[in-house]
Amino acid sequence: MKFVTFSAAGQRSWGVVDGAEIAAIGHMAGAPASLRKALEQPDAMKAIAAAKASAPRLPLASVELEPVLPDPDKILCVGLNYENHRKETGREEVSHPTIFTRFANSQVGHGCPMIRPKVSTHFDFEGELALVIGKPGRYISKADALGHIAGYACYNDGSIRDWQRHTIQFTPGKNFEGTGAFGPWLVTPDEVGPFDGLRLMTRLNGIAVQEALLTDMIFDIPTIIAYCSTFTRLEIGDVIVTGTPGGVGAKRNPPLWMKAGDRVEIEIDRVGLLQNMIVDEA
Amino acid sequence: MKFVTFSAAGQRSWGVVDGAEIAAIGHMAGAPASLRKALEQPDAMKAIAAAKASAPRLPLASVELEPVLPDPDKILCVGLNYENHRKETGREEVSHPTIFTRFANSQVGHGCPMIRPKVSTHFDFEGELALVIGKPGRYISKADALGHIAGYACYNDGSIRDWQRHTIQFTPGKNFEGTGAFGPWLVTPDEVGPFDGLRLMTRLNGIAVQEALLTDMIFDIPTIIAYCSTFTRLEIGDVIVTGTPGGVGAKRNPPLWMKAGDRVEIEIDRVGLLQNMIVDEA
Repeated sequence: MKFVTFSAAGQRSWGVVDGAEIAAIGHMAGAPASLRKALEQPDAMKAIAAAKASAPRLPLASVELEPVLPDPDKILCVGLNYENHRKETGREEVSHPTIFTRFANSQVGHGCPMIRPKVSTHFDFEGELALVIGKPGRYISKADALGHIAGYACYNDGSIRDWQRHTIQFTPGKNFEGTGAFGPWLVTPDEVGPFDGLRLMTRLNGIAVQEALLTDMIFDIPTIIAYCSTFTRLEIGDVIVTGTPGGVGAKRNPPLWMKAGDRVEIEIDRVGLLQNMIVDEA
Repeated sequence: MKFVTFSAAGQRSWGVVDGAEIAAIGHMAGAPASLRKALEQPDAMKAIAAAKASAPRLPLASVELEPVLPDPDKILCVGLNYENHRKETGREEVSHPTIFTRFANSQVGHGCPMIRPKVSTHFDFEGELALVIGKPGRYISKADALGHIAGYACYNDGSIRDWQRHTIQFTPGKNFEGTGAFGPWLVTPDEVGPFDGLRLMTRLNGIAVQEALLTDMIFDIPTIIAYCSTFTRLEIGDVIVTGTPGGVGAKRNPPLWMKAGDRVEIEIDRVGLLQNMIVDEA
């Protein structure tokens, strides 16, 4: 299944994509109020699949997509998780995943503008695979980790590079409003299948700027989940963004920054295509 | 006024401290369900003061205090904000506040145990002044910043040092469950007054281990609020933890780690005394 959170007629709702339509389960009386609440139901996948059949239908093209999970408790981001990106940043090899965080209010959905703030021109792309936790846990073992995933989505971990480098901590450069794109939908693991051969690509105005295999990650997904769940209890709806490959704009000569009117796309095989236009902050 | 969030008879509530009693406003029919919701009311301070008179009373000693704000949208922490701590860590001078984050599930209240996780013995104290946002905003000017503060509290930004240093990002070492103590209460700015002469002290088993004047901060509170509100919209209930002075256990020779049975206290003049015992994770 593919889950979406969307706005229609000014109302936020959620549903399941079915071809060119959405089965708008969130519109049904008594339905969970959000995708996160839906994932928190007992036997969530079965309950959602059952509701899908009787849900009202909307054309997918008629709604505005929101971030896949607009209200996560936590967004954990992995830095420096592809060797060619680690090398281009000049960072040392480390024995553990590098973890920073985003706030939910920094996110936008597929098709929504990403916002270059008025205090910087150094707006960079970072194409990444995101996952959403479907089963809570602490001290999750690598062996059990894949069973805690509700699904995968594309993520553009847009970064304001000069603010990211104000100090040794990345927080400011990773949290400007409208800089993190998350979509278009959440795809359940059975539809993604094994990662072998699956490719992640970032395109800026149609030109490929990042490309990698998902299997190129330095720390694989079970390792990331095991590590994060050691220091924090993972809850349903928590988002983990798994890192970007080489090719970021900041490390090009000259640097390549996103600017108003640019179109940025993150495409991951069997996951989806996330597209956003860049606008300047009003 | 002094606000508390507490549990009584297994129910979370909130109220205003009045001597040895709590005016349990959260117990009243139609009252806001949490301190955060109470602060979100129009004319919040007047509404709370008015409700206080008719609220049921509980002995302060009869309840379990929770983190002052258990459900903030954001917790922003400032690192390296006192010169003697910056020097002991060997970090370079920077032109901007160093910002990292905590998740709400890492917090405990006054009198609750702080938890040393089973994966580390490097559990360190960090006495700090915390503030809670009472008026939302983005791009808040330094001149307006103090008007956005609902109140102040003591904070023990307890840190798992080996996990903090796994990589260049602090997140893992700052987010273990039960490592951040926040209390005992939130004191409105009028009761704290100007910071001149106000002292922050951390004691471990009664012995002073950190001591500073609040005016020793490298980046003062208006600067921190102006900086943070540039990259993220601050919401009512957001917490900013303003940094720790020199004297942390990690930089002593030999290092001084907190262990089961230890009593740690953060005392700030006119703000309060936050006390917690250390326990080992079960």
